[in-house]
Amino acid sequence: MTPAEYAADALDGVPTIADIWAARPIVAEVALRTPLVRLQGDYSRSSLACPAAPPEIYLKLENLQPTGSFKLRGAHTALRGLTAEALAHGVLAASTGNMAQALAFGARRLAVPCVVIMPEDASRAKQARVEQLGGQVLRVARERWWQTFQERSYPGYEQAAFIHAFDDPRVQAGAGTLGVEILEDLPDVDAVVLPFGGGGLATGVATALRALKPDTRVYAVEVATAAPLAASFAAGDLRAVAFTPTFVDGIGSSSVFPRMWARAWQLLDGALVASVAEAEAALRVLAERQRIVAEGAGACAVAVAVAGRAGGGKVVCVISGGNLGLDTFARILTD
Amino acid sequence: MTPAEYAADALDGVPTIADIWAARPIVAEVALRTPLVRLQGDYSRSSLACPAAPPEIYLKLENLQPTGSFKLRGAHTALRGLTAEALAHGVLAASTGNMAQALAFGARRLAVPCVVIMPEDASRAKQARVEQLGGQVLRVARERWWQTFQERSYPGYEQAAFIHAFDDPRVQAGAGTLGVEILEDLPDVDAVVLPFGGGGLATGVATALRALKPDTRVYAVEVATAAPLAASFAAGDLRAVAFTPTFVDGIGSSSVFPRMWARAWQLLDGALVASVAEAEAALRVLAERQRIVAEGAGACAVAVAVAGRAGGGKVVCVISGGNLGLDTFARILTD
Repeated sequence: MTPAEYAADALDGVPTIADIWAARPIVAEVALRTPLVRLQGDYSRSSLACPAAPPEIYLKLENLQPTGSFKLRGAHTALRGLTAEALAHGVLAASTGNMAQALAFGARRLAVPCVVIMPEDASRAKQARVEQLGGQVLRVARERWWQTFQERSYPGYEQAAFIHAFDDPRVQAGAGTLGVEILEDLPDVDAVVLPFGGGGLATGVATALRALKPDTRVYAVEVATAAPLAASFAAGDLRAVAFTPTFVDGIGSSSVFPRMWARAWQLLDGALVASVAEAEAALRVLAERQRIVAEGAGACAVAVAVAGRAGGGKVVCVISGGNLGLDTFARILTD
Repeated sequence: MTPAEYAADALDGVPTIADIWAARPIVAEVALRTPLVRLQGDYSRSSLACPAAPPEIYLKLENLQPTGSFKLRGAHTALRGLTAEALAHGVLAASTGNMAQALAFGARRLAVPCVVIMPEDASRAKQARVEQLGGQVLRVARERWWQTFQERSYPGYEQAAFIHAFDDPRVQAGAGTLGVEILEDLPDVDAVVLPFGGGGLATGVATALRALKPDTRVYAVEVATAAPLAASFAAGDLRAVAFTPTFVDGIGSSSVFPRMWARAWQLLDGALVASVAEAEAALRVLAERQRIVAEGAGACAVAVAVAGRAGGGKVVCVISGGNLGLDTFARILTD
């Protein structure tokens, strides 16, 4: 499959549960089968907005993955869908940093060049990690970065195979494998909360849940400073919003990709919103009670679940990653 | 079994691989089957002391356990060995904090009172967590605390069932279960590095390894400010040393319990030592590259492995726990 054929194929259709099932052995080549752990301690006193019994909260620990996020699942699934011919000129992606690290990791393994377009406000810690993995980073204005997702190419790198960070059925199928793992570990799960940036994680995992346990409540979560999906759900139509950069850099933009909005509207029960302060508090809880470093996106999932916004019962929060600059982390810990 | 009978039994003999195998379903009632993950990144440049190829380092993540350390394995195995009659007056232990939390967790589950003797320099964060779990804490001078391990009782609590934090074959068998898990996940392991405080973890896991893969190199690790086992190995005889409290509070005392020294001498290949500065550096690596919060004891294991002191090949470091005050953690992150 050439880059052009791959791109055409990626634009065509959505993953099925069969695609997700087929991705499992591929994902297992590089990714950890992450544990699902129960959130410790008495967090119920924070559950002011929860009218029923406080939820039992579980955490899917994707922060433990090599490269520090779930993105390795989709990046590797996509890379394995490409022929040697397609990989001859390397791979290209746009990312705030997690997909960038995952793709650089996978590309190094295959010994092909990797170039990543990052927005100018992206974390320097994430850029450094991409470069340590042998990836090349181009920092561009945020609007130009977003445009890359639409054009699926970047000037000067037209021959490279573009791996779309979210709007690619293989990438979504790879992410969806963690949905199957959640059901294996907690067959009577009531709700799942998924950080929503581009939407690859949320739609991939929702595809698995809708097929295997259709009555599961499935929510996206965004940070209040960048919550276009919540605005779109509220309006029943695609909406753009103002975007303010914060330490929560794995999710959030000013708008949702139209095809991802259509998928989200079809698959999800709604979009929840965490404030930056709530995300910081959740990050402290995760460090103290669970002994993990979560990035802001994962902390947002815990924040809304603890507040009861995902309802009662057994609620799984996907800790999408843990890539956070240590200075930022230390600041939040001592706030 | 009454407390007296249990104590007599605990003084008698050592666990076998059959005891460890029998403990597995008991441990599984409360503990996580923790993942073994490969340490990410290029740490080989630190391996100055390693003459051969740099080791491949793997981490056994006991910091993810409920109550934040491996101690839950042994505490629960010991509790389940007691009759209702023996538990009628509650349970008693001496601990710097990890066994205290594990026992308080288990006692709450069984609805029996739990009292823990802690040394006066023990972490306030750990004490608070014990109290949140319903345990009662008595802080005493370090010498008085150590005496409790010898007397297996404390004035005013003679009727309580004393659970020895390390010198109890059930506690050791519970800890030993993680050795079996290491071999399941990494059958060709070359070496295992185990934090050594009282010695229950090291002797329990070494018992499993000696039975199932006898050629594995098995090392204890201590912190330089409290390393009586290393001094004893160097002398070929039991030695006491000066003790300086540091943030590495899960391991280290001024002396080793004579029966534990005899077991360690028989089972281990040696005792390695990490400096406090090395432990702090390892703690930063674990936060940045593995997205976990490790306590000092676990960081010491990584520190000596990275420095090549555990030799080459596939080296597993047991991250014994992650109970660390957030202020201390933040200070070390920004040092």
